Amino acid sequence: MTKTDLTHDASATSWVEGADGHAHFPVQNLPLGIFSTGMKSKRGGVAIGDFVLDITAITDELGSVPSEAARLTESGDLNGLFAKGRGHASMLREELFKLLTDEDKREAIEPHLHAADSVALHVPFTVHDYTDFYTGIHHAVNIGSLFRPDNPLLPNYKYVPIGYHGRSSSIRASGVEVKRPSGQKKPAEEGGEPGFGPSERVDYELEMAIWVGRGNDLGDPIPVTEAEDHIAGISILNDWSARDIQAWEYQPLGPFLAKNFHSSVSPWVVTMDALAPFRTDQPARPDGDPEPLPYLKHDSADAAFGITMEVLITTPRMRQKGDAPHRLSKGPMTAMYWTAAQLIAHHSVGGCNLQTGDLLGTGTLTSGEHGGEGSLIELTEGGKKCISLPNGEERKFLQDGDEVIMTAYAERDGFARIGLGECRATIRG
Amino acid sequence: MTKTDLTHDASATSWVEGADGHAHFPVQNLPLGIFSTGMKSKRGGVAIGDFVLDITAITDELGSVPSEAARLTESGDLNGLFAKGRGHASMLREELFKLLTDEDKREAIEPHLHAADSVALHVPFTVHDYTDFYTGIHHAVNIGSLFRPDNPLLPNYKYVPIGYHGRSSSIRASGVEVKRPSGQKKPAEEGGEPGFGPSERVDYELEMAIWVGRGNDLGDPIPVTEAEDHIAGISILNDWSARDIQAWEYQPLGPFLAKNFHSSVSPWVVTMDALAPFRTDQPARPDGDPEPLPYLKHDSADAAFGITMEVLITTPRMRQKGDAPHRLSKGPMTAMYWTAAQLIAHHSVGGCNLQTGDLLGTGTLTSGEHGGEGSLIELTEGGKKCISLPNGEERKFLQDGDEVIMTAYAERDGFARIGLGECRATIRG
Repeated sequence: MTKTDLTHDASATSWVEGADGHAHFPVQNLPLGIFSTGMKSKRGGVAIGDFVLDITAITDELGSVPSEAARLTESGDLNGLFAKGRGHASMLREELFKLLTDEDKREAIEPHLHAADSVALHVPFTVHDYTDFYTGIHHAVNIGSLFRPDNPLLPNYKYVPIGYHGRSSSIRASGVEVKRPSGQKKPAEEGGEPGFGPSERVDYELEMAIWVGRGNDLGDPIPVTEAEDHIAGISILNDWSARDIQAWEYQPLGPFLAKNFHSSVSPWVVTMDALAPFRTDQPARPDGDPEPLPYLKHDSADAAFGITMEVLITTPRMRQKGDAPHRLSKGPMTAMYWTAAQLIAHHSVGGCNLQTGDLLGTGTLTSGEHGGEGSLIELTEGGKKCISLPNGEERKFLQDGDEVIMTAYAERDGFARIGLGECRATIRG
Repeated sequence: MTKTDLTHDASATSWVEGADGHAHFPVQNLPLGIFSTGMKSKRGGVAIGDFVLDITAITDELGSVPSEAARLTESGDLNGLFAKGRGHASMLREELFKLLTDEDKREAIEPHLHAADSVALHVPFTVHDYTDFYTGIHHAVNIGSLFRPDNPLLPNYKYVPIGYHGRSSSIRASGVEVKRPSGQKKPAEEGGEPGFGPSERVDYELEMAIWVGRGNDLGDPIPVTEAEDHIAGISILNDWSARDIQAWEYQPLGPFLAKNFHSSVSPWVVTMDALAPFRTDQPARPDGDPEPLPYLKHDSADAAFGITMEVLITTPRMRQKGDAPHRLSKGPMTAMYWTAAQLIAHHSVGGCNLQTGDLLGTGTLTSGEHGGEGSLIELTEGGKKCISLPNGEERKFLQDGDEVIMTAYAERDGFARIGLGECRATIRG
């Protein structure tokens, strides 16, 4: 895909009402997802404006590869489609672009549009393994400062894309309520007995989700130069965290129950093709930072993505009064110290096999400027101070009924803005 | 299942040649697994002596529930069968016991026996999530001593069943070669550059695998008193580890590439029914150790299993000379500080959902006595000294061509010995 690709033409218009200029889903985006309706079970769809197009219902209008691609989603996930590599999805997207911009096709296609608010959206892939990285260097410094004020960033950080295995069974789509977990909590004083009960420090973490497309065989690493061929696309990820459970359990093997009670993902997979116009250079490493080891060296400069992310909150009282969501954070995805391609190369360098539908979290992305904190523990300095909401309510961590809304979008002069939609969920006791 | 169950009768004999007195698979065991032959794809089988009985081929001889149970394995894994709970597998085992001890059934059943060395054995479940615990307290002390001589056991250890999420995609059955991983290795001196290349410190870890049977819903913890209803059975697990990669990457989020290049499991699932005669008390906690928190408290005393585990090695030179494997370690499964039931209760206490086929590793089980070390890093005190093999060869860590063989068995007066078979694999460069 090049930046002059037809599907990136900002002047292209669609016959779908409200699609042109849509904040997330103009015809230049066309993210893939899995949806269901009351009448019919899970299948593939594409977001266009405020509608979802059932791609399995229009295969007669598609050429041979795109129609095969669409039919592969009848299984109820995107795994079969992306196991084919990126080519099938690319050809499907191009053909959908043509159909949705061609007034002559309206009559055939329009009956298969569903109002987005009338369908259920699901986790787009069957996720085999979920890995959460820690690429947000400002987040790593902030968290490290809470635990090790003298030495916030460990010596390996600028060499190793730090990551750990997460829990795939508890990944849920945006909109599914999050039950506050119970667990052992750090003793009040050193050497004391741990507490037990509902977490009092439930937090969100603003991350991006990178979906693995084609996998690799065990023992067969993916070179960094080929890594993007193994990425299906990206979504938004909220890596819910219980800080009091985490503080007690995490040594020496890392977070476990503090993170595995629930993870939320946005339902639309924005493909690498749609993101092509928004490629950007990885921020230069500060002077004195080591060069990446050879297996992590890109041959292209623009391996990062110019995406802006936001976190908003509503409380039960705010919703009752009809108050608008309050923004807690805004920052760029380029807060990643390592690119998506570097994460794929690192993950597989020892021979670990990635499989289609694996989810890689970027780790919490904090901008490094005030107002860009990707979690409450950073905003409240470890729960030491409160944040104030516009209506006078205060929070250190999340209370029952609070809804966290994450959103992300890409903008660039000369191109249509595209978005990733939303990842939202409410905490329940 | 009670200890007086018919299937535990030590005097029962089978018409299958060599089954009576078999070191692992007498008729009192009947572990389930997945096998394939040249002619036919993966399906369920049961080990009897040196044979594998194709349970999908004898459904006409089985009652309605057992035949349904057997047919559920035609999908090529044991997930469907154990998703039904333990009852189906129990009834199948009882009926297989009757068929295999009844000379009158020989003619109907015998044609469906395959010589064990003529079939391929597979990972018995489709594993969604793999969690590795750290219940071996002597191992935890030994490893902690290498990193923190003054403070080997962290304050949480005796309260929290420490565990972390592992990688499910790289789990392979016994017999599949293990490729030596490459990766970043700890700098020779503090503040130096990391090395990169093939690991020079590949190690094994002796563990038991606990297979999850029936799962639980997200947000719905499993009480410790019901935990065993969610266990399908156990196998042997080798959690291969690259110590030089581990030492560099593991802070602050735990092991990642050091462990995810390969994990080996033995193919036979020894069920809780077969293990019933070998139940034993959990070793008493040493004076001064805290009581388990209420959610981890058993109402039964005999929640541990009297299983003996061994690790053996052969080198290429030993095999060439026809030398017998050399035993490196022997110790009891009761080295677990937490029981299998406690692991299930802890894993789910925050609401995390377990799914059928999830694999829980016990963590390395080291006996606490010399000769019971569950890994080379313990035997060689962090690679500081060599171990000598009978033929004069020496090892600090594993070399290419070395084969590690793990085995396990249960013995008790008045009962037939049963075994878990073997978990073996060879390192290749």
